[in-house]
Parts: sequence; C-alpha cells; structure tokens
Amino acid sequence: MRFKKHLLTAAIGLTLSFSSHASELETLINMLHENGMVTDEQYGRLMNELAENKASNEQQKAELDEKLADATKPSDVEISTNGGLTLKTRDGQFSTKVGGRLQVDAATYGGSPDMGDGTDIRRARLYLAGTLYRDWGYKLEYEFDNDSITDAFITYNGFENYQIMAGNFKDPFSLDYMISANNTMFMERALPTAFNAGRHIGVMGARNSKHWTLAAALMGDTVNDTRDADDRDEDEGWGWSTRGTLAPINEAGKVVHLGLGFNYRDLQPNNEVRFSQASETSVSSVRIVDTDDLANADTMLKSGLEFATVMGPFTAQAEYIRASVERDNISDADFDGWYLQSSYLLTGESRPYKNGVFGGIKPNRRVGDGGIGAWEVAMRYSSLDLNDGAIEGGEADSMTLGLNWYPVPMLRFSANYVHVLDVDGGTFDGQEPDVFQVRSQWAF
Amino acid sequence: MRFKKHLLTAAIGLTLSFSSHASELETLINMLHENGMVTDEQYGRLMNELAENKASNEQQKAELDEKLADATKPSDVEISTNGGLTLKTRDGQFSTKVGGRLQVDAATYGGSPDMGDGTDIRRARLYLAGTLYRDWGYKLEYEFDNDSITDAFITYNGFENYQIMAGNFKDPFSLDYMISANNTMFMERALPTAFNAGRHIGVMGARNSKHWTLAAALMGDTVNDTRDADDRDEDEGWGWSTRGTLAPINEAGKVVHLGLGFNYRDLQPNNEVRFSQASETSVSSVRIVDTDDLANADTMLKSGLEFATVMGPFTAQAEYIRASVERDNISDADFDGWYLQSSYLLTGESRPYKNGVFGGIKPNRRVGDGGIGAWEVAMRYSSLDLNDGAIEGGEADSMTLGLNWYPVPMLRFSANYVHVLDVDGGTFDGQEPDVFQVRSQWAF
Amino acid sequence: MRFKKHLLTAAIGLTLSFSSHASELETLINMLHENGMVTDEQYGRLMNELAENKASNEQQKAELDEKLADATKPSDVEISTNGGLTLKTRDGQFSTKVGGRLQVDAATYGGSPDMGDGTDIRRARLYLAGTLYRDWGYKLEYEFDNDSITDAFITYNGFENYQIMAGNFKDPFSLDYMISANNTMFMERALPTAFNAGRHIGVMGARNSKHWTLAAALMGDTVNDTRDADDRDEDEGWGWSTRGTLAPINEAGKVVHLGLGFNYRDLQPNNEVRFSQASETSVSSVRIVDTDDLANADTMLKSGLEFATVMGPFTAQAEYIRASVERDNISDADFDGWYLQSSYLLTGESRPYKNGVFGGIKPNRRVGDGGIGAWEVAMRYSSLDLNDGAIEGGEADSMTLGLNWYPVPMLRFSANYVHVLDVDGGTFDGQEPDVFQVRSQWAF
Repeated sequence: MRFKKHLLTAAIGLTLSFSSHASELETLINMLHENGMVTDEQYGRLMNELAENKASNEQQKAELDEKLADATKPSDVEISTNGGLTLKTRDGQFSTKVGGRLQVDAATYGGSPDMGDGTDIRRARLYLAGTLYRDWGYKLEYEFDNDSITDAFITYNGFENYQIMAGNFKDPFSLDYMISANNTMFMERALPTAFNAGRHIGVMGARNSKHWTLAAALMGDTVNDTRDADDRDEDEGWGWSTRGTLAPINEAGKVVHLGLGFNYRDLQPNNEVRFSQASETSVSSVRIVDTDDLANADTMLKSGLEFATVMGPFTAQAEYIRASVERDNISDADFDGWYLQSSYLLTGESRPYKNGVFGGIKPNRRVGDGGIGAWEVAMRYSSLDLNDGAIEGGEADSMTLGLNWYPVPMLRFSANYVHVLDVDGGTFDGQEPDVFQVRSQWAF
Repeated sequence: MRFKKHLLTAAIGLTLSFSSHASELETLINMLHENGMVTDEQYGRLMNELAENKASNEQQKAELDEKLADATKPSDVEISTNGGLTLKTRDGQFSTKVGGRLQVDAATYGGSPDMGDGTDIRRARLYLAGTLYRDWGYKLEYEFDNDSITDAFITYNGFENYQIMAGNFKDPFSLDYMISANNTMFMERALPTAFNAGRHIGVMGARNSKHWTLAAALMGDTVNDTRDADDRDEDEGWGWSTRGTLAPINEAGKVVHLGLGFNYRDLQPNNEVRFSQASETSVSSVRIVDTDDLANADTMLKSGLEFATVMGPFTAQAEYIRASVERDNISDADFDGWYLQSSYLLTGESRPYKNGVFGGIKPNRRVGDGGIGAWEVAMRYSSLDLNDGAIEGGEADSMTLGLNWYPVPMLRFSANYVHVLDVDGGTFDGQEPDVFQVRSQWAF
Repeated sequence: MRFKKHLLTAAIGLTLSFSSHASELETLINMLHENGMVTDEQYGRLMNELAENKASNEQQKAELDEKLADATKPSDVEISTNGGLTLKTRDGQFSTKVGGRLQVDAATYGGSPDMGDGTDIRRARLYLAGTLYRDWGYKLEYEFDNDSITDAFITYNGFENYQIMAGNFKDPFSLDYMISANNTMFMERALPTAFNAGRHIGVMGARNSKHWTLAAALMGDTVNDTRDADDRDEDEGWGWSTRGTLAPINEAGKVVHLGLGFNYRDLQPNNEVRFSQASETSVSSVRIVDTDDLANADTMLKSGLEFATVMGPFTAQAEYIRASVERDNISDADFDGWYLQSSYLLTGESRPYKNGVFGGIKPNRRVGDGGIGAWEVAMRYSSLDLNDGAIEGGEADSMTLGLNWYPVPMLRFSANYVHVLDVDGGTFDGQEPDVFQVRSQWAF
C-alpha cells in the first residue's frame, strides 16, 4: 500500500503529456493560416474547436487528477504480523496488538532430594494491547496456565518521555524481574528472584530516556485478594516501589547499566510473609529453601543493586538484593541473595538494551534464510540466604549452564543444567540436587 | 479506500478526452482537403490512418477502462480500530470484532462497619464477536477477574427488527442491569440490583424498534452449574423473563422511557435463594444487608417498573423492583427496593439511548483535540428492604455523589462518594458506612 | 485487490495509444511539406516540436508506467474472515488466525436413573494460531468452560509432508477422538471414548500424505499436574502413542479408511486409573458405568482398530478399542468397547476427509442463498464393557439417533436421542435411561 502516494505525481505527469499534441497541432494550424492554406473563417473555427477541446480537456483532467489523488490516498489502517497481529492507523492515533507467548518445559532431576521429573506449560498468555487517541495506552494480558491476570492497565503518554500508568503491573524493582520472562538469559531467573516484588494494583509514574530511567509506584494488593474470609473487613496490604537506572554508555552492542531499587510493603492484613525458592526450575514444585510463614510481620523493605554490561556478543549481569522484615515483638529478619551471570552469542548478535532492561535476541541470519539462527552459551552463579537467627529457611548456592537457540525471531529453544552446590540449613540441609531442563518458546 | 469508486467515472472521462484532438485534426484535414491542399489519395490515406488509429484507440481505451474499473474495486474487507479491532466485509456478510474492557478500582471506607480499604480489578474482559452470512451473529466474552463466561451466544437476525438468541446472556429484566457496566452512571449499580436476574443459558426472542422493545426469554441455569455433588441427578433451575419498554419520545437529546419487566425462577434443585448487597462498592466484600439462605424456597417472581428521561445534558433514571419468594410450608417472603438517579453533563453531551437502554458518553471535544473531554456530575438515592417478617436481612438507604470524566471515547475515570444513611435491621443494624472510591476504565 | 495487477498491462496500453495521434499528425505534416504547403523551415520547426514532445511524452509515460506498476503492487498482507479473523502475508511467510467455538446444550432425561435436566455450555474456546517464517507454526487455545489449556504447541513444518510438534496436544489415538468435536457425527462421541487418550505435554512426529498417515508421540503428563501434594517429589506419568491410517481410496465423496493405534501410559505417580462414561450426554454428570479408581495400576496399554467409509452422502465409521491395565500384585484388568455409526446427508453433501480424519460439513446451498443448508440424519450403536473379574464397572449398550442441520458453514444445530439399551452390572445395573438433547454451535 505504501506505493499509492506516487500515483498523485503520476497523475500530474499524465496531465502534462496530454497537452503536448495540442501544441503541435496549434503550431501547424497557425503555420497553415500564415501560409494562406486555411481561410480566416476556417482558422477561426479550428482555433475555436481547439480552445473548446482544450478547456474541456483541462476540466476533465483536473477532475481526473482530483479523483486519482483521492483514490491513491494511502489506506488509513496498516495491518501486519510477525506473530500475532498488529494494526496501526496511519495518523498514529490508534494501534492494536494481539499477541501472546507459550513456554513448554521438560525437566529431569538428579541427586537428592527427589524432585519429580516431568513436563509443564510454564507460561501460556494472550494479550490485547494498543493505543487510543495517540496519548493513551491500554493492555490486558491473561496467563492461562494459572488463570491469572498479569498486565492490565491504562497509560497516559501525553508528556514526552513520561508515562503514567494505572492498573495491575510489575512493581518497578530488580533488573532480573523487570526483564520479560521471554528474554531472560536462562529458563528461570536467578535464586534471588525469591525477593522479586511481583505485580500489584496501583499507579506509577515513569521517566525513560536514553541514559537513565526513574520509576516510582504506589501499589495496593495483588489481583487475587490475599485477605482470608476472616479478615475481609481489614485493609489490604499496600506498598511503594522505586527503581532508578543509569546507562552512562548506551549504544548498540555497548552498554554499561547501573541500577538501584527499593520496594516497601505494609504486610497487612494477615501480617505474614514467606520467602522460598526452587532450584531455578519450575517443573518440580519442591522448594529447596523456604522460610515458611513469618508471623507478626509488620512491614518489609527490599533493596537492590544492579549492574550489567554488553560488549558486542558478550553480556554480564549481576544483582544483590536484601529483604528486611520488621516484626512486632520479635527480632527483625534479614535475608539476601546475589547472582552473576554472563552469556556469549556465538553467532555474533548483541543483547539489545532499552529503558533500563534487556530485550530479546534476534538472530542475524535465521534458519531457512541460509543461517543457523542465533546461538548463545551462558553461565550463572547465584546465591540465596534465607537463614537469619532462629529462622532457618536454608542457604543455597547454584551454578547454571545454559544454551539458547533462536532459530528465527519470536522462537527460542533453551537447555539448562543447574547444579545446586550445597543447601545449608532448612529441610534439605546438605543436599545437592541437579536439574536438566529444556524449553520450547514462542512469544510476540 | 472509500474514494476508489470514483475512479470508474474518471476512467470514462479519460476516454472522452482522448478523442478530442482527433476531432480537431479531422476538421483540419477536411478543411485542407476542401481547400485542395491535400490530394484525394492523400486524404484517403489520412482518413484511413485516422480511422485505424481511432479504432485501435477505442479498443485500448475500452480495455483500460475495464482494467481501471477492476483495479479500483474497493477491497473486500475493511479493517478499523478505535480500541480493539473491527473487520467488515464490504458486502455486509461478515464482520469480526475483538474487544474488551478493564475497570480498576481503589476504595477507602469510613464509619462502621470496617470494610477494608484496598484495590480491585473490577472487570477484565476480552471478547470475540461478529456476523456470519449477514443474518447470523455470534459472541464469546470471558471475564478474567473471576474466570467466568459472560456473553456466549449465537443469534439469528434474518427477520427485520427481530432477534432470536441462544446461549448464555442476561435475562431481560431491569434497566439498570441491562445497561452495560461500562456505561452506568455510577461505578456500581444501585442497591436494588440485588434483585438483578443475572445471566442464564437459554433462548430469547426480542423485537427492537425506535419507540418500543419487547423481549421474552426461557432460561435454564447459570454457566456454573449450581447443583451440589449431592443433587447432581436433580433437574437444574429454570425460569422465564420478559421486559417491555416504551419510548414515546426518542430523539437525540430528548428521551422519555418507560419499562416493565417480570422474571420468574423455579428455584430447584437446592430450593434456596439469598439476597444481599454491598454499599454500592465492590472492593470490599462486606454485604451491609443480607437475607442469608432462604430455605424451602420454591419459586421466585421479580417485577420491575422503569422510568427514565433525557433532556439535553440531563438524565434521570428510576426503578422500583419487588421480589416475591414462594416457600413451602413457610410464609412467602417479599422484598423490594428503588432508586432515583440523575446526572448532568457539564460539557453539554447527551446520554445516548437505543433499544431500551442507555449507551456510553462520547465527549464533544476530546482531550488532545482542544477539549477537556466530557464531565458529568451525578446524584443518586437508593433504597433496599430485605426485611420481611421473621427474615431480618436489613434495610438500607444510601446517597451517592458521582463525578465522571470521559477524556476521550473509550476511556472513563470516575469518583464516587457513597453515604449509607442508615442500616435498619440485620447484622449491621444502625451502622452508616461511607465509601470513597475511584475507577479507571477502558472499554470497547 | 486481486485485480490490481492488470493495471500494469493497462498502463502499457495507455502508452501505445498516446503515440497514435502523433503518427497521423506526422503523416499530415509530411504530406503538406511534400505538397509544398509548409516551407522547409516551418517543416523543420514542426518536426522538431514533434520530436521534442514525443521524447518528453515517452519519458513521462515511462515514469507513469513505473509509478503505476509500483502503485498496483498487491498489498503485503491479506486479511479475511469467515468467522474470526485470518491474516496472511502474501509471501507465505506469516499467517495469523483468531478463532473459536461455542457449543450450548440443553438436555432432558427419561427412564432411570434420574440424571437432571438442564443446560450447559459444552465448549467455549478461543485460540490464536499461525505461521512464522513459513516453516514454523504455533497455536494456543483455551477452553473457558473448564478453564483449561487445550492446544498449546509449536510446530516445525520445514520438511515436506512431515510435521514435528512440541507442546500440549491430543495423543494420536482413536479416529473418534482425533476428529474435532466441532465435526463429530453426534453431539457426543461414542461410549468407547471412555478410552480416549486425552491431551498431554510432549513431542510428536507425524507424516501426512494422501493415502496414509503415521504419527508417533512421546508424552509426559497433562497440563494440570496430576500429582497430589503428597507425591510432589515423584516423577510424573508418561507414555507413548502411535497411530497409523491407510486410505486406499481417497477421493472427494469416496473414501475407505483403515486405522490402527496404540497408546501406552506409565501410571505413576499415584498408580491409579479410572474409566467411566456418561450416556453420550454431558449436561448431566451422572456416569452410567464407572470402574472407580483402580489401585496398584502400573501401566496401561490401549489399542484400537478403525474403519470408515464415505460413499457420496453416506458415511460409516466404526472402531474397536481395548484397554489393558497391568497391576502390581493383582490380576490385570481388561476392558473394551466398540461402536458403529453411519449418517446420510439428505441434501447431498459428502463428509470431507483429510490426513486420516473427517472434517466439517459445508452445505451445498446455504440458508439465505436460496438453500436450506445441509441436513444430515445419523444412527449409532455403541457398546462399552467395564466389567472384568472382580471389577464391576458395568457394561452398557446404547442406540442413538441424530439430526444435524448446517444452515451455513460455521454453524451447526443438532438434536440427538439416546436410548441406553441396558446397563449390566455396576451402580446402575439394569437401568435404561433415555436422553433427548439439542445443541447450538458456532465454530471457526
């Protein structure tokens, strides 16, 4: 459709060329008249006919031009797909996107404890998102695997570089968690994602620019009301969250990222909190470390430090997160964790970076187009300490090796091997499970 | 694309203009022949060439016209968006619409009883709807917030002004409930919506015309089978519902609406019914009046009277609903309720009315286009009496103030203040809670 | 849009016709010059003007041709609907389909046992499916009626006639179950579908050709993890499944189909299996035969034989399925069942057949286009024996009469009458319930 606009020019060319024979004919008639070959009366008739026809031609051509111009107006709506469906109005006022994702896992476990080999639909989501009247945005995404609403919000984007958001969305906290699960380096996020802040219903203001971002949110409770039948008449929990990132270097293939985040929660109504974590796998539901419910919990503050860098095909990413729980009449509890992960894209791609998070890998040369897609090897060390004083949730360290294959954009196949180095304390004290797992994914 | 049809005319114009120079040339040649400037033999050759070229031109032009006409046929399918996605075939045989809605609420409560401040996704829906072969329609809508099917039906529209429907849909009863929750004057419907008839699986015949509507339905049970494991082998409940409306005046900005409805339910299999109501809020799940399960209930008949009027920017709407429960071996129970609500659109819009219900407000001048959107102030008094004899469900009256802002079509922000004047009887006898709540909404 | 390509030819025609008057004019000028009516100098000027204009015309026409050719390039994306929404890129690289189905049932029961008259949404699904980069496919479908993921997979189709699939999909086993529930001859599948293999998460390789198909799959557990809280650390069940079909005759309206399938399951972790069946109805949840949980079950092997034929409007279909459960320390259990069903399309259509399954009926002449749609009468005898030794699940035989009306493609209305001839053994020994049920369906 994008070539239609040329027709207007073409139509003008058409008009010009129409007049040309008339000019030669007029020259000839004038000559013949000069030479006395046609009489004055005949000359007058010819000139008259010429003028009449010229006028009638010009009018018809003007109409034609106008109609052609109308006819060749580009269509108001563009529609496209590279997975799902995207629709945009050419004036930029509206857009609609239907998209989704599917992640299918299989895992086998070694060592102890027994974890239960098997398969799992890890994520299966569809969403409808779009733009209304240029400045307004909306999204509704549903996770079919556990029947829950994920992103469900309305945004105002009328102030350049700023975004105001209301609805259900991720608290801005932790690089690992902010990166879409479609685009994480490994199949599962690192152990310290036990401290991710999750999604809540609330409002957020965010500023995104090339070299820094800042987001601050005031959040209520989760979509699924966490109040029991007993405490229905008590106020829901609430919190605030803020994350700032700095990217002193941000070019294609060359990024340095620093981040700092805080997340606060008032733990009403049930005044409980629980941290636990699986061995970076999700087919098994065994949690290798687990604080169990911490009662009398009043408030919780999480703080996190982020570092990441991209140097061509190489990416490194690290975080340290600490969670402090203030408890009534009992000593406070502090837990922490960190990870360092890095990857190398054997086929030369670079991990894209924008607005303080990493995006997904697009292969330079895709399968079916003479290429082998993108291949990435990755390594991670992560550590999570859920022991504090009398609370013995356990401490775990794990090493992970990963291999990702992106045959074409939108598709990803991953294989991960996780070795838990040692669990120290908790139910699984001293145990060292192994995980081998694979994933097939489409996402757009 | 809508200008394409003019091209056919343009192409005809083109043909006409092509012949014109030929006519002048022919005139000239004739003159020259008359004047003896060209010989008869030359004249013959010229005329021949002229005729040959004319014929060949005409043929080529006819082909061109045909091809242009073909080429400029409008595309068979039109696609558009103003939120979501709409597709129509130009012959009117098919259409498809992908749409949805999101309502996000936050509420804070005062007075007693404690109700629990918090946030809530009130509604989060996506739907697929459309037309098949002109006369048939379909819809499937899902409510993600409570994982339930809402509208799911097939319709036949082949008889003008009539509609036959089979599937799951709202029983035709009560103006307040028939109006889409996207378009109600306040965030929540009035107290007597405790008597709304809900959705059931069934069949309906409806007639819609400008000045009156009539709908009659035979309905089975709800989508979620209400039979317990114990009574799986008993028949489901069933009922009928009918609603007639009269609009002696129905012009843009000038409406008088009268309505009458009846809804009957056979309360098998469990022979129970329960009426309860929150204080026109839904973040809290506290019900200020509640009959609890009424056992031995055999059948139930609800009847309702509706009145509404639109006078320019002013709307008034009122209903009275009575529910009579016939019980075996116990005295029957009768409950009732009414409300009167009115609103004024400060920015001059009028509430649209069609087929016996009100539609949504579209701002005259939207934000981002030199306007401030539409602003509406609203006031309501509602009353619900769930006391009858030994049944002390409580009686409640409430006053509500509302403010609605529609910055652009499809978006709505509302703030409501509800003051319960008095609860008389029931668990919360004598209490007077206050509600302040806000909502962000997109819907299309 | 498909006519656009003609414009290029049209444009060429346009160029040719433009030159024609120039040729007559040139002839005339030459004659006049020969006759001495114009001087050599005048002749030179005229020829010059003629040549200049010719050159300028030709250039303009070349530009016009080029622009017209560009302008009339077909659009990159085709969008269409015949229910739902289909989008294809013209290069065959991408496609997207949004579709769904709705089946609404009502049933009334006679005889004994009591089964509970009522209504039901039998199936309500939406899906997103498509093609990525020609060789890759994806689908995600959700069943809203019971909140479960049905099809959720990724496929590779890069090898001609072969398909590799990973995700959640039907185990390849049993013709009756492989046929989409939109297209089955009766509202419910025959009694032996008690042995259908269901959907599991796994991988499959399949080969489809005109006269034979072969599919083999390695499957893990179902989407909903069947492990209890107690056995979370045990391995999930797994199995394999294979189905081969042969169609020595496969023409439109003339098909002979033979099939053979095996399905194996390792019944860990809970080592239980249960077979049960309703009387070919699903509004009631009463199961007329039921083995209850068979404990100590280790593995299970199902085997099935299929036969079907199409002769013009006539279809016959038959299957025999046997299920053998191997149990630890107890004698093995064997159950079996069979059915024979046939239908006749009164309006002359034939049941389509492809890739080893039957498709849906499309009426020859639809309602609204001078036709009455397609009308089909059908008859079935089915038998299921769940008695084996000490296990008395019951044996049931039933006769079913069916009437299907397909007014237009995508819509179907069915009425079925089922008479259970006799239940022999089990809870409902000696009982003979009747079923009368109707369904409204849209599907695309």
